[in-house]
Amino acid sequence: MRNFELTREYLENLRSLINSKKNEAITALLEELHPADIAEIYVELTLDEAKYIYFLIDDDTAADVITELEEDDRRRFLESLPSEVIAKRFIDRMDSDDAADVLGELHEDIQKEVLSHMEDVSSAGDIADLLSFDEDTAGGLMAKELIKIKESWSIPTCLRSMRRQAEEIDEIYYVYVVDNDGILKGTISLKKMLLCPVDSLVRDIYNSDVISVRVDVKDEEVSNIMEKYDLVALPVIDTVGRLVGRITIDDVVDVMREEAEKDYQLASGITDDVEFSDSVWVHTKARIPWLLIGLVGGILGSRVVGGFIGILSDHPQLAFFMGLIAAMGGNVGIQSSAIVVQALANGSLGIDTTFTKLMKELAIALLNASILSALIFVYNYYAGAPLALTSTVSVAMFSVVVFASLFGTVVPLVMNQLKFDPAVATGPFVTTLNDIVGMFIYLTIGTLFFTYFTS
Amino acid sequence: MRNFELTREYLENLRSLINSKKNEAITALLEELHPADIAEIYVELTLDEAKYIYFLIDDDTAADVITELEEDDRRRFLESLPSEVIAKRFIDRMDSDDAADVLGELHEDIQKEVLSHMEDVSSAGDIADLLSFDEDTAGGLMAKELIKIKESWSIPTCLRSMRRQAEEIDEIYYVYVVDNDGILKGTISLKKMLLCPVDSLVRDIYNSDVISVRVDVKDEEVSNIMEKYDLVALPVIDTVGRLVGRITIDDVVDVMREEAEKDYQLASGITDDVEFSDSVWVHTKARIPWLLIGLVGGILGSRVVGGFIGILSDHPQLAFFMGLIAAMGGNVGIQSSAIVVQALANGSLGIDTTFTKLMKELAIALLNASILSALIFVYNYYAGAPLALTSTVSVAMFSVVVFASLFGTVVPLVMNQLKFDPAVATGPFVTTLNDIVGMFIYLTIGTLFFTYFTS
Repeated sequence: MRNFELTREYLENLRSLINSKKNEAITALLEELHPADIAEIYVELTLDEAKYIYFLIDDDTAADVITELEEDDRRRFLESLPSEVIAKRFIDRMDSDDAADVLGELHEDIQKEVLSHMEDVSSAGDIADLLSFDEDTAGGLMAKELIKIKESWSIPTCLRSMRRQAEEIDEIYYVYVVDNDGILKGTISLKKMLLCPVDSLVRDIYNSDVISVRVDVKDEEVSNIMEKYDLVALPVIDTVGRLVGRITIDDVVDVMREEAEKDYQLASGITDDVEFSDSVWVHTKARIPWLLIGLVGGILGSRVVGGFIGILSDHPQLAFFMGLIAAMGGNVGIQSSAIVVQALANGSLGIDTTFTKLMKELAIALLNASILSALIFVYNYYAGAPLALTSTVSVAMFSVVVFASLFGTVVPLVMNQLKFDPAVATGPFVTTLNDIVGMFIYLTIGTLFFTYFTS
Repeated sequence: MRNFELTREYLENLRSLINSKKNEAITALLEELHPADIAEIYVELTLDEAKYIYFLIDDDTAADVITELEEDDRRRFLESLPSEVIAKRFIDRMDSDDAADVLGELHEDIQKEVLSHMEDVSSAGDIADLLSFDEDTAGGLMAKELIKIKESWSIPTCLRSMRRQAEEIDEIYYVYVVDNDGILKGTISLKKMLLCPVDSLVRDIYNSDVISVRVDVKDEEVSNIMEKYDLVALPVIDTVGRLVGRITIDDVVDVMREEAEKDYQLASGITDDVEFSDSVWVHTKARIPWLLIGLVGGILGSRVVGGFIGILSDHPQLAFFMGLIAAMGGNVGIQSSAIVVQALANGSLGIDTTFTKLMKELAIALLNASILSALIFVYNYYAGAPLALTSTVSVAMFSVVVFASLFGTVVPLVMNQLKFDPAVATGPFVTTLNDIVGMFIYLTIGTLFFTYFTS
């Protein structure tokens, strides 16, 4: 139905309304929009313009817009406001998980001030609880708002209690069943409640086959579990099994997107989570570290090549294929790393031993290496290159492809073992190392062959 | 609670139970598992073993396991069964969207046979409808099962009708409101029905502010909309606005994951959607195309370098930094492309003109290029390289970084305009072209400088 697309015309129109302070027209314009759309507009406005429109929209929408903003924009906006406004206008109106996320981005002193200004003391307590969990664990993802009923209750008792509990919650996906100690026992879907006879007891109809995670489970695993089992909500338990919160799919979708973008950016040699719209300075900061690694690697490479100045002076044709060999090593290495990184990320690495995995990669490498070195041999042969050069290029191609495949497979596996992010392996790091080793292999083989063929 | 992890021991145990035909023990083992877990086991079994356990599990679970399988495994399994078994044991028990996905993978003749064997003729019709949509559109993602009520009904009428409709549906997220012509008017959440007075009319309490998509909207846009607005279900309408289906978040999560994996693999030079567990042959087929492009590019590069044989014979030190210059061009180009590709994928490219975007990228490039060429100048100066070489490397570095940035930005934008997948730009394609152009720039500058400094 509604389909908003931000255009330059729209933005200019809004800007001119702000400048001429046409508050009614602005309100009418914004009322049609979803908070996510307003957040999209916000990014394009100055801080003063943004503040101006913020205080024209109603409080619940304003709180939603805040949660939809990018972290940097949100912090910049909130830090310009007094703690009391943050508490009453925004945090008080958010779900506990969003509130904790937003507060967690602010300075600790401000966090305490904001919590002390909150009207709802019990949700302030919930938020303080949530702030104590690591951001990238189930505890950091979960919300405290959920509907729970006791296994001993009848359906009418449940419905009464649910009506009371439901007022605080946006959407109900599942109703959780706990025992008298608060230990999670199972779930009942709303559909079941809609269909069951009115005199049923919870105990007789609930589904005890519930998948849950402990507060300290990593967010990547949470997203893999929710994806594997197609869940829209996942209950979170503490170390003794008590139900303490629930994670909803929309939060996990964000985690998945961020994970995928991070891996993708690492593979492309970008260190920080940057968006196209970020400033020149943010982009440069995110890109320069890998370029510096590449620079250092390239300098080391130049020294390796420098060690072969003798053979290069005698046979400058060797330089023709340096680029090809280096590039092939890089390409093959990235392919191998990418497959491993992806398998590690989505938990599909399988149950084979590392040795079996390497043997399989070796088989792929031998196949690729044979094809590529045969092709380049045929090319050089028909191009009339000297036999020494033809042999050097083919043998070096074979060796470099096999080396780069195994190296590209081992590095992310080892990094994962050592608890580093294996995705880093797909970045310029492996490429650069492959470049250097590739040059060394190529020129060493070249020295041997040219010496042999000319002696 | 339940937390299944497939181990080699578990698999060996299951295998030996299959070999000794201990059916009761197998059933007991499998009963504890979620269909997604059984699907995970399936991948590790032979076709005969898999068939053996399939006919020991109950029909509903078997149908769920089938939907959880990877496409290749599923097709292999189903093609070994008669159409009647596929219809009655599997397709009849699936949601319409899953049924259409599964059937869509089979040969058209088999599709017709299976549909003709289905017990439920009306769902056979639904599935046939769904099969007519493109797989990567909203129509291809949606399911026909949904709960709809008319705006003129009272709540008790709704509840009666919903009880009847709900029997076919796994989970209810939203109840859709339509008018007498079936045009989508809005939604009512179950929460609202739980809380509203019993004598309300749908017309008075439904939420008319509903986001929907047309059947022909692309799946990427569907996933961007659902993510942006945090939706768990999205209604699908036809060209005149009639409600024809709904898309649930779990299907979109799969789309997102596949999109992200595809982009990631393209950036890594892998053409097909391969999994770590695929065969050596599948891996080789997915990897060799890009390697061949790299090979052709490398050969072209060797001819470019070959054109400079004179200067390389006279000054073989020029060869030392060929690798560095080529690698930097490649790195910078991939960084620029990746940022654009990601912005195109998640719709965050913003509203600036292409010219403004390029100017910004130019600013980043100039900054990076200055830093890198200054550093390499300092290195060469202190390493005692001849002034001609020092100047060549620095000036070439500057030029190549600027060229590669702009080239890397323009290529995905142009590909997107021409309706190609821009993610291809991040693969070896751009790197290879950057390599060649980089070599040409470097050696041309080298020729100029060495001629100038020695004349």
